[in-house]
Amino acid sequence: MREIAVFAGSAHPELAAEMCAQLGVPLQPVRMTRFANDCLEVQLQANCRERDVFLVQPLVTPVQENLVELLLMIDAARGASAARITVVMPHYAYARSDKKDAPRISIGGRLIADLMVAAGASRVLAMTLHSPQVHGFFSVPVDHLHALRELADHFRALDLSRTTVVSPDLGNAKEAAAFARRLGVPVAAGAKQRYADDRVSISAVIGDVADRDVIVLDDEIAKGSTVLELIDRLREAGARTIRVACTHGLFTAGALERIGAQSDVVEIVCTNTVPVPADASEKLTVLSVAPALAQAVQRIHDGESVSALFDTTATPEV
Amino acid sequence: MREIAVFAGSAHPELAAEMCAQLGVPLQPVRMTRFANDCLEVQLQANCRERDVFLVQPLVTPVQENLVELLLMIDAARGASAARITVVMPHYAYARSDKKDAPRISIGGRLIADLMVAAGASRVLAMTLHSPQVHGFFSVPVDHLHALRELADHFRALDLSRTTVVSPDLGNAKEAAAFARRLGVPVAAGAKQRYADDRVSISAVIGDVADRDVIVLDDEIAKGSTVLELIDRLREAGARTIRVACTHGLFTAGALERIGAQSDVVEIVCTNTVPVPADASEKLTVLSVAPALAQAVQRIHDGESVSALFDTTATPEV
Amino acid sequence: MREIAVFAGSAHPELAAEMCAQLGVPLQPVRMTRFANDCLEVQLQANCRERDVFLVQPLVTPVQENLVELLLMIDAARGASAARITVVMPHYAYARSDKKDAPRISIGGRLIADLMVAAGASRVLAMTLHSPQVHGFFSVPVDHLHALRELADHFRALDLSRTTVVSPDLGNAKEAAAFARRLGVPVAAGAKQRYADDRVSISAVIGDVADRDVIVLDDEIAKGSTVLELIDRLREAGARTIRVACTHGLFTAGALERIGAQSDVVEIVCTNTVPVPADASEKLTVLSVAPALAQAVQRIHDGESVSALFDTTATPEV
Amino acid sequence: MREIAVFAGSAHPELAAEMCAQLGVPLQPVRMTRFANDCLEVQLQANCRERDVFLVQPLVTPVQENLVELLLMIDAARGASAARITVVMPHYAYARSDKKDAPRISIGGRLIADLMVAAGASRVLAMTLHSPQVHGFFSVPVDHLHALRELADHFRALDLSRTTVVSPDLGNAKEAAAFARRLGVPVAAGAKQRYADDRVSISAVIGDVADRDVIVLDDEIAKGSTVLELIDRLREAGARTIRVACTHGLFTAGALERIGAQSDVVEIVCTNTVPVPADASEKLTVLSVAPALAQAVQRIHDGESVSALFDTTATPEV
Amino acid sequence: MREIAVFAGSAHPELAAEMCAQLGVPLQPVRMTRFANDCLEVQLQANCRERDVFLVQPLVTPVQENLVELLLMIDAARGASAARITVVMPHYAYARSDKKDAPRISIGGRLIADLMVAAGASRVLAMTLHSPQVHGFFSVPVDHLHALRELADHFRALDLSRTTVVSPDLGNAKEAAAFARRLGVPVAAGAKQRYADDRVSISAVIGDVADRDVIVLDDEIAKGSTVLELIDRLREAGARTIRVACTHGLFTAGALERIGAQSDVVEIVCTNTVPVPADASEKLTVLSVAPALAQAVQRIHDGESVSALFDTTATPEV
Amino acid sequence: MREIAVFAGSAHPELAAEMCAQLGVPLQPVRMTRFANDCLEVQLQANCRERDVFLVQPLVTPVQENLVELLLMIDAARGASAARITVVMPHYAYARSDKKDAPRISIGGRLIADLMVAAGASRVLAMTLHSPQVHGFFSVPVDHLHALRELADHFRALDLSRTTVVSPDLGNAKEAAAFARRLGVPVAAGAKQRYADDRVSISAVIGDVADRDVIVLDDEIAKGSTVLELIDRLREAGARTIRVACTHGLFTAGALERIGAQSDVVEIVCTNTVPVPADASEKLTVLSVAPALAQAVQRIHDGESVSALFDTTATPEV
Repeated sequence: MREIAVFAGSAHPELAAEMCAQLGVPLQPVRMTRFANDCLEVQLQANCRERDVFLVQPLVTPVQENLVELLLMIDAARGASAARITVVMPHYAYARSDKKDAPRISIGGRLIADLMVAAGASRVLAMTLHSPQVHGFFSVPVDHLHALRELADHFRALDLSRTTVVSPDLGNAKEAAAFARRLGVPVAAGAKQRYADDRVSISAVIGDVADRDVIVLDDEIAKGSTVLELIDRLREAGARTIRVACTHGLFTAGALERIGAQSDVVEIVCTNTVPVPADASEKLTVLSVAPALAQAVQRIHDGESVSALFDTTATPEV
Repeated sequence: MREIAVFAGSAHPELAAEMCAQLGVPLQPVRMTRFANDCLEVQLQANCRERDVFLVQPLVTPVQENLVELLLMIDAARGASAARITVVMPHYAYARSDKKDAPRISIGGRLIADLMVAAGASRVLAMTLHSPQVHGFFSVPVDHLHALRELADHFRALDLSRTTVVSPDLGNAKEAAAFARRLGVPVAAGAKQRYADDRVSISAVIGDVADRDVIVLDDEIAKGSTVLELIDRLREAGARTIRVACTHGLFTAGALERIGAQSDVVEIVCTNTVPVPADASEKLTVLSVAPALAQAVQRIHDGESVSALFDTTATPEV
Repeated sequence: MREIAVFAGSAHPELAAEMCAQLGVPLQPVRMTRFANDCLEVQLQANCRERDVFLVQPLVTPVQENLVELLLMIDAARGASAARITVVMPHYAYARSDKKDAPRISIGGRLIADLMVAAGASRVLAMTLHSPQVHGFFSVPVDHLHALRELADHFRALDLSRTTVVSPDLGNAKEAAAFARRLGVPVAAGAKQRYADDRVSISAVIGDVADRDVIVLDDEIAKGSTVLELIDRLREAGARTIRVACTHGLFTAGALERIGAQSDVVEIVCTNTVPVPADASEKLTVLSVAPALAQAVQRIHDGESVSALFDTTATPEV
Repeated sequence: MREIAVFAGSAHPELAAEMCAQLGVPLQPVRMTRFANDCLEVQLQANCRERDVFLVQPLVTPVQENLVELLLMIDAARGASAARITVVMPHYAYARSDKKDAPRISIGGRLIADLMVAAGASRVLAMTLHSPQVHGFFSVPVDHLHALRELADHFRALDLSRTTVVSPDLGNAKEAAAFARRLGVPVAAGAKQRYADDRVSISAVIGDVADRDVIVLDDEIAKGSTVLELIDRLREAGARTIRVACTHGLFTAGALERIGAQSDVVEIVCTNTVPVPADASEKLTVLSVAPALAQAVQRIHDGESVSALFDTTATPEV
Repeated sequence: MREIAVFAGSAHPELAAEMCAQLGVPLQPVRMTRFANDCLEVQLQANCRERDVFLVQPLVTPVQENLVELLLMIDAARGASAARITVVMPHYAYARSDKKDAPRISIGGRLIADLMVAAGASRVLAMTLHSPQVHGFFSVPVDHLHALRELADHFRALDLSRTTVVSPDLGNAKEAAAFARRLGVPVAAGAKQRYADDRVSISAVIGDVADRDVIVLDDEIAKGSTVLELIDRLREAGARTIRVACTHGLFTAGALERIGAQSDVVEIVCTNTVPVPADASEKLTVLSVAPALAQAVQRIHDGESVSALFDTTATPEV
Repeated sequence: MREIAVFAGSAHPELAAEMCAQLGVPLQPVRMTRFANDCLEVQLQANCRERDVFLVQPLVTPVQENLVELLLMIDAARGASAARITVVMPHYAYARSDKKDAPRISIGGRLIADLMVAAGASRVLAMTLHSPQVHGFFSVPVDHLHALRELADHFRALDLSRTTVVSPDLGNAKEAAAFARRLGVPVAAGAKQRYADDRVSISAVIGDVADRDVIVLDDEIAKGSTVLELIDRLREAGARTIRVACTHGLFTAGALERIGAQSDVVEIVCTNTVPVPADASEKLTVLSVAPALAQAVQRIHDGESVSALFDTTATPEV
């Protein structure tokens, strides 16, 4: 297999450019055309033959446009004799459609995985999938990274002597626990009950947060309802300061403004798996996952272990 | 196999409703949800088990949204144990992406066909595909209809004694010739040369059109450039009146207005394979293909020949 | 499709016989042979041609023997021209292998699902899968039942005025909540944190259980560690009586004895998705899911909605 | 991937030998056996393991024998652990079966493509397919070459000052236009109408051919009816001399004799994509595509762009 | 599934016609076209929609022509929406290519089976395959018939008091033993050793044949070398009379003449799985398998057991 | 493709270790876990990325456990991005299930082959498959070795002047004949008739064995009934000494003891394709196939011909 060739779709070319800078390879040009009948055409404008092709495209708004564009890119690379096609998908939005909670719906996370394979994807590089089972929806190898190292490095600069990591969801607190271990601090969790798709109630906080500097850690923040409710509970429980951290900062429907408007929230931290809104809150810090993704790409290309990179004894994931 | 169950996506529910009225079956309800992260969910709200399911969705603007919605519907029907899933796609926009006229592009017409099959489509009911070879892109049975009967019935009401059918494209004049035979009138053709995707030149009209009532017949009109240029040539050649007819009336970029503004164009006729723009020209007549589609659906369900319905000895196509 | 033909593997013929009695059809004979070289051969001893074949086999100990036997049965039915092959798998043990929590392991729940499809399974009838995402591991339709109706009918005979349903796992309390709604009683939950595969800690009980008659509801009890720890927490919190209920009563490693030995545990309830141990505790009540499975089989055969049977407005799952 | 290994079937070993000479590699031996029951067996008589295997076989008469022989060779190479199997098919006869112009026929061009993939073909190297859409019939990468460079080099030796390139089919004149651009001469076209499979009528020649030296360019000449009729039209229009050129010179049913017998036809030019008849006309010139195919094979093996080789700015095809 | 539709390829329409007469259904017409470029086109000239389609085509000389014709018919039926496509292949010539007895050859029996499935075959009805393992080469259900009933009925008319059945191949004598049991006579066998593909030596006859009326039973006679050598051995061993029987009477290379010329051979019996040569020996009796095939087709269509038809307690095969 | 990585399942780690010693590579560690619910988990504990992975697992008792373990290993290697996965299966027990000798059974040899491919196997390295047709059950390349070289080397140490090789099964005597040619001695054969699965009768020995030193050669000895009956026949025919040799020494049901107890049996020879029973007979000699397997692995990895290694002019098999 010959050299790496990286192409980016329309979803997040900035991230791809940053990855390429890290990798020391050019971001190859792509020509996008929209025909009069609204059909798309994507031309990969660099030789793909026997190359190790990486296509960078998180599934962000507009999701359907970005998805079809990605499928056309995969097929184009296949038809152009790529040796291997890795979809670099730092955010897989359809991962939330992971179960059949109503009759006669599609499990979208499985369907879209199958479509990518049908189009020709050889493998996927993903980050912090909504549930770990989504890994099993893919019939091709998946490298599943997390951003705990980046987040931990950021918070280590702080005085952590009174810090507690809080997971909004006790039942899904594995990542928060691993994160707390990295920081050497205790962990607590909100006892979240989700009654319906859009109504969430957090009835309690398990663990001691009184007079603590809290770091709330979630995988993704979209509308932010869960986090906002947790902040209320933390406030009631006497938390001293609150920091909010997540991997995927979608921040839809004014979430960033509403969370930023909480006076005891001193910082909001996310990564650039998705594009950062231009008018971001001044409390927002965006960490880059480009170095981590670039390192994973290099290791995938070189045939070196990716799990070795991201594992710690405490969190043998990946 | 039990009874027919028809569902419509967002692209053209009016056509589906009209088909159902013809068939004497209800149009089954569908619930569309768009989540905060822009992902779609489609719930088919009627029992699909062992049903003969028909999903009506032309690929019209917004094409990518309609396509993903359709794929989710197909997968939902499959997961809900439909006995057979027929995609009723009166307009297949990606059929124009039928060749690799640049390196490293996808042949979209083939890719999208494969995606529909990957999602679970058992068969396709299509109408006037851009090129007949597109039929071969599908690995499932395709019933490929045309609208010549509807168009011919419309024009038979006129005095056809001085009428000539004109194909804009001599090399693709088979349909126009069949149509002229149906009307019992002569055929002529523009000698079109396409130099680039957006620049078309019609250098001549083959056949006698001087002092004739011309019916221009094309499969699809999008921006209308070809038709407008042909009208210029017909005018130079002394045509008496001009009627413009097509199956797929996309009419993008003001095409309807520009064609309607030609003084010697006395009528524009299309079918409802795609939704009719609300502010249609007063010269526009829209013929319904719903009866034809309904008849085909009924015959598919009953296991009767569809080709018998649409063939004539002169045009043994389909 | 012609009539139903039900065959049972070695795992749980009693359940299959009970289903057949409910359905009013014979349980068809099967001949099992083990050759000198330890290979298995299974002969389905009734005509399968164009039949609607149902193969009943929960994946219980010895799991590998039962799995290979099932795969041979599926392939035999396929080769014998079955019209449709439904695997009735009331307990899918490999569903617990649903994520990649260590590098270089198989996601067994996905692999085994793929193997069943490779052998020829047309569809699956499952019950209370360990996680709802496992549904998405199958590329064929799955009817996913639960046993809440059976369990609720059992407990409705009691005085429920002081009853609270408790889920051992707050993060996975959806089923317990649905169950409590069916009984019209409140719900509480243990705040479980799983630190490793075999070490579980329940740090708190969320919700009021003091002086309540508690029904602990879990999907499956194997070694019973989680339930035993929860009982400790409930006792500390002042629960009046404790009943333990689950769908899959595996009860390995003396779990039944150890739970039964708790003085405040007044009843243990499970269903017969798996064979009941011969030397069961006297506190044990086993409810039969055979009527529910038989009803589902009948509806699958008749093309009637299965979700309609198992849904309530409160729990629109399945 | 290790070195190139080229094998030839029975259809055209001369072309394969010439390619190998260009490539500087041996043409590997093949043993063909026909059993008493008329079944074929093909043994590839050189190691294929991890080799980059190329199988040279145009689909020429006897097409069915050559096709099955090719399928057996592909499967043999697959079973012998070839790293990659490229079918070099300079003439794909079934490409003409590219649409369903009668009910209940196979679209042979798609079926045969699927059979080659089922047998194990990894990719295809084709030349001047009958219609560009046939590319989309393949589910493996296709390198689609043309022979315009070879043909242009041949004609550049002439005085082209009064030359016009004429396409027999205006609607399919893209290749002729590209060819004319290469020669720097004007293009004209016959206005062909095909009424039935065996009856062709050319009603006019579009463009000025009076007193011109005409080069008729077609993709393939079989029975030659179209070309003969075009020659009549050109003669009527006052052409000075006529040269006939094509890529695939099948020349069935005495076509070569009949065309050669036209007094104003001064030369017939074709390539060796198919074997040249032994008793060829003295007016016939055969150009070799072996250098072009060899160059493509070398670039495929080396992972270099093939489109870069065959494209010009004027004709960005391939 | 609606009614049966039977079509025949070119290989053996007489057999198909006889089957249809037995079934009381018409043999549907087929139009075969050979184009100028030697490509085939087959049109099934009766409605296939939802029909239970049976395509009758033994693989006899010219095998490759008949095979490709069959594949085109299968694909045409699939594209025409047949409910089920059963290939009725009374003689599968490629079954002899069942192992890899030289490096880098295809196992043709497996490849051709895969091609039929790739073209769309749902199932196969075969007769007396060369080795029983060939059944396992198909990934679709196979009904594997034998002609023992027909052969036994024929010989029962004789005085069998001194009859012995002799298998030419002891190691493959299962069928001869079953046949002898049907006739109630003893069995013997030639001890055949095959040293090379075309050189066979029979060193001994196991069992008593002196002064017996011998019926030699083989599955297929092509060149007849084995049978001729066995006749020599039988003669040496003092056999009284010799009858030669087989299922597939290919009789190539003058086999019929050479066997018929043996003075002690009093009768040669075969079936019509393959077309009978016009100039057949006067010693030849041809039994029809059309009734058996018709019965199997009817049972396949009706979903009744085929094994029940062909099995006896002594020979539980099929 | 990077270096070789060899892993062994539970079936025969000793053989894998010996192979690795020959190859000069480490046997990579594997962690086997059996969960409370009897499900298995296998972790490959060395990097597989882009490695040429070999998984050593003969299918021996407990066959089902070893099979599922193997499938989990294959899938784990696939998910861990192995470049190629070769199953090294020195004994394929299910190869005996190679035909459908009763209705409604699976052809296990084909099914298990398909399951290995479904799990992700790229190729198989097998040894002395029960019938050569089983090769055709695999849809991936198979290297099919035999152990004749090892066996011949062993016996060459003897005085072979009066030696005859005897095959228990005349109809399957090809391997014995090849073996005899290697030793330069004559061949004889038992005329075996198998009436039922567990009842075998050997009616005669073809060839001269009186006063000869006989080497009985079979592919596999399980219960040993065939060999024991052949020994009786050889004794009756006056054999001087008897040696028994086979590739797969399963020796179930006391076979080793019973054969060893025959006074005229002077030696029993098998290979270590399967584990040697601890309490082996003192007459038993076990030859190692590890060097042959290691050589094949090395050649597969290096892309060198394997058939070249195992072929002789006399036995061009493999």
